[in-house]
Amino acid sequence: MANILRQPVRTLTKSASPSEVLRLTSTSRRWQPHSLTSKRYNASVAPPVTQNAVGKEGPTAVVFMNMGGPSTVGEVGDFLSRLFADGDLIPLGPLQSYLGPLISRRRTPKIQKQYSDIGGGSPIRKWSEYQASEACKILDRISPSTAPHKPYVAFRYAKPLTEETYEALLSDGFGRGGKHEGGRAVAFSQYPQYSCSTTGSSLNELWKWRNRLEMKKEENEEEEGTIRWSVIDRWPTHPKLVEAVCQNIETALATYPAEQRDKVVLLFSAHSLPMSVVNRGDPYPSEVAATVHAVQSRLGFRNPHRLVWQSQVGPSAWLGAQTSDTVKNYINKGLTDMVLVPIAFTSDHIETLYELDLEVIGEAEELCHKAGLECGVKRAESLNGNMTFIEGLADLVNVHLQEGRACSPLMDLRCPGCKSERCREQKKFFAGMQDRIPALGATPAA
Amino acid sequence: MANILRQPVRTLTKSASPSEVLRLTSTSRRWQPHSLTSKRYNASVAPPVTQNAVGKEGPTAVVFMNMGGPSTVGEVGDFLSRLFADGDLIPLGPLQSYLGPLISRRRTPKIQKQYSDIGGGSPIRKWSEYQASEACKILDRISPSTAPHKPYVAFRYAKPLTEETYEALLSDGFGRGGKHEGGRAVAFSQYPQYSCSTTGSSLNELWKWRNRLEMKKEENEEEEGTIRWSVIDRWPTHPKLVEAVCQNIETALATYPAEQRDKVVLLFSAHSLPMSVVNRGDPYPSEVAATVHAVQSRLGFRNPHRLVWQSQVGPSAWLGAQTSDTVKNYINKGLTDMVLVPIAFTSDHIETLYELDLEVIGEAEELCHKAGLECGVKRAESLNGNMTFIEGLADLVNVHLQEGRACSPLMDLRCPGCKSERCREQKKFFAGMQDRIPALGATPAA
Repeated sequence: MANILRQPVRTLTKSASPSEVLRLTSTSRRWQPHSLTSKRYNASVAPPVTQNAVGKEGPTAVVFMNMGGPSTVGEVGDFLSRLFADGDLIPLGPLQSYLGPLISRRRTPKIQKQYSDIGGGSPIRKWSEYQASEACKILDRISPSTAPHKPYVAFRYAKPLTEETYEALLSDGFGRGGKHEGGRAVAFSQYPQYSCSTTGSSLNELWKWRNRLEMKKEENEEEEGTIRWSVIDRWPTHPKLVEAVCQNIETALATYPAEQRDKVVLLFSAHSLPMSVVNRGDPYPSEVAATVHAVQSRLGFRNPHRLVWQSQVGPSAWLGAQTSDTVKNYINKGLTDMVLVPIAFTSDHIETLYELDLEVIGEAEELCHKAGLECGVKRAESLNGNMTFIEGLADLVNVHLQEGRACSPLMDLRCPGCKSERCREQKKFFAGMQDRIPALGATPAA
Repeated sequence: MANILRQPVRTLTKSASPSEVLRLTSTSRRWQPHSLTSKRYNASVAPPVTQNAVGKEGPTAVVFMNMGGPSTVGEVGDFLSRLFADGDLIPLGPLQSYLGPLISRRRTPKIQKQYSDIGGGSPIRKWSEYQASEACKILDRISPSTAPHKPYVAFRYAKPLTEETYEALLSDGFGRGGKHEGGRAVAFSQYPQYSCSTTGSSLNELWKWRNRLEMKKEENEEEEGTIRWSVIDRWPTHPKLVEAVCQNIETALATYPAEQRDKVVLLFSAHSLPMSVVNRGDPYPSEVAATVHAVQSRLGFRNPHRLVWQSQVGPSAWLGAQTSDTVKNYINKGLTDMVLVPIAFTSDHIETLYELDLEVIGEAEELCHKAGLECGVKRAESLNGNMTFIEGLADLVNVHLQEGRACSPLMDLRCPGCKSERCREQKKFFAGMQDRIPALGATPAA
């Protein structure tokens, strides 16, 4: 699998359309090594190293963590079974191990049909591998002392799974006894906004496999030579994330006639959460709102907007207003020009390609048709291979390595209503890594 | 009543403590006419006018809208009866006119006791009149062309009520037939974040009284000579609002020993909303989150934080996590250093002085005492007479007058789940004022 992760970009993007590849190639020239957010560090003037050269602090494993999705229709069953087994994501209580498999088996045919309708699988692996690989190339240029930067992807519910990636790290020489013994690895959450259901669940999984694969029970000094982990746990308003989302919104708005453009409603859509998770004190709703506000600030609040929530399942109470209801309600009020903006997920996935593009927009078209109205409901592109976004990812890792932080001060604080011991121990572990993570002699610019 | 509103600051602040007055006097020197946010307009170099001089666009009525509170214990009954009659704030359905009085009568003795415990009344009138008066003085200096700026306060549930203030405007010569016929008035919501329950309710009330006091049914050209209204409907991340909140947080943090300081948890606390309002698509939770993120950005995210929600009443579902539960849960997890930060209300009120200071902190002290822990739960000051904040208020009005906007593009968009015709008509009215509100020849700076 390690080989697969090192595939050249050419292979990873071979399913991208020619125009997509052209766009990527041309925008990649826009990269400036001294970006706005990293310029406070004295940039090294050493020539960039290649993946073969090793800086004095390198190599650095950069592990992109995300939920993942089935790459083929055949993987849907396994994907759903892992998803419904995860109490961090879908809290089913003490009956989880009984209800989870039951629900996932019942839902499999329907979800297989959905993946089939969007082309036979989720593109998230392709995009994650591409994003990680491109970000690492940039990092090799802008942070030669921590090079080479090795891209990895660790998914929570699909291949490559966290344990597979952990084993790849070990077989690549990170960790005890390897050629990069005690090497640095950055667990980089690909969810810009922190939720215990998403980033928290991925970190719990990483911590679990770290204990299984790197701990020896009989030893007290357990940390000697094990991988030195740090975490990028949230980045809801990183300037290049915001800029990339704005680019996609502006592209979508440009498709409306000039005189209608400023009236188009922007519906920022994020995956919803059960109210039980919201009321436990999960930080996600607030951080998604922060992203929305940053995007609208950058756009000058020219268009009206709402933050709405999608993909609610089951009978319990979830956070609203729901995306699908919102679109229908606005059409019923006579508003037909809306741009749906995916705001909490960075690659296309079933919730954009099926739920928004086919279901929500499909229903909107039907409703408009019945009312004799012209339907102007569209979707802004997902970030996918957007080069501004990928520059942002590289900048985040660069600043993180320079600062030498194990995790943000926010991550150490549990939710007020949290009762999970796993969560407590995981946070203690990652925050405790601080002793082993030095700042890289970063000298703030004058 | 108009006379009361024009009282000199000395009278309005006579109940402020000497240290408070000293603080206000010293910080007021910090005012810079060309603030960060207004410098994009070419500032006039004309000498500031006095309240007697009239600029070519003046006078301008600046109406501070807020919910208000009973100034004496004797006013509690009337206050509650208006509060529970307001379906925008407390939606009780078709039985509102029956249930409202019932609930308010039952709650009156308890709430009277609370106001008695905080000194016999709410300070909100004192602070609102002070803030409005000081902001208008600054406006006379920085915007001579729209001077004099006349301060008014319009409360939703306490004196001075919206209708009283509207009548004061008319008797002061604004509106048809007066000496300032067709004069300008700015409805300035003192809720930084927009909710239909708060700002929306105040605007509905203003629109209602405008129709009753300024419309003549037989006339078609109804707008000839009536007051030209515009609205400042939200300002969740104005830099001076953010700066003022940060000052109060830093003051509170400075009271902890240096080695504990960065571990203190900041609990930003805002009034909660019923989930029925949240799920209708009310923008308030997102905008409060935007304020929190702006404050934490300015503070460098040094301290961990959560946004929590207070003052939930009744049996229906409200947005959480609740402030009181959060404090107890954290103490039970061994965290005892917390600063409660009022983030959605700009003056002290029963929810800070009674609920946070006496109830929440009182319970925290008891819980810590039982557990043998030292209690470090404190509250950051409310904005009240903070001069940075008041400079921000003046800046908001100045920019608003220069831009010549009837209201923000956000205000015109109804909530997706809104069924209120009053709300629809009110928005149509204020947005429609655009034709009568010219931009004041603002030339953007090069």
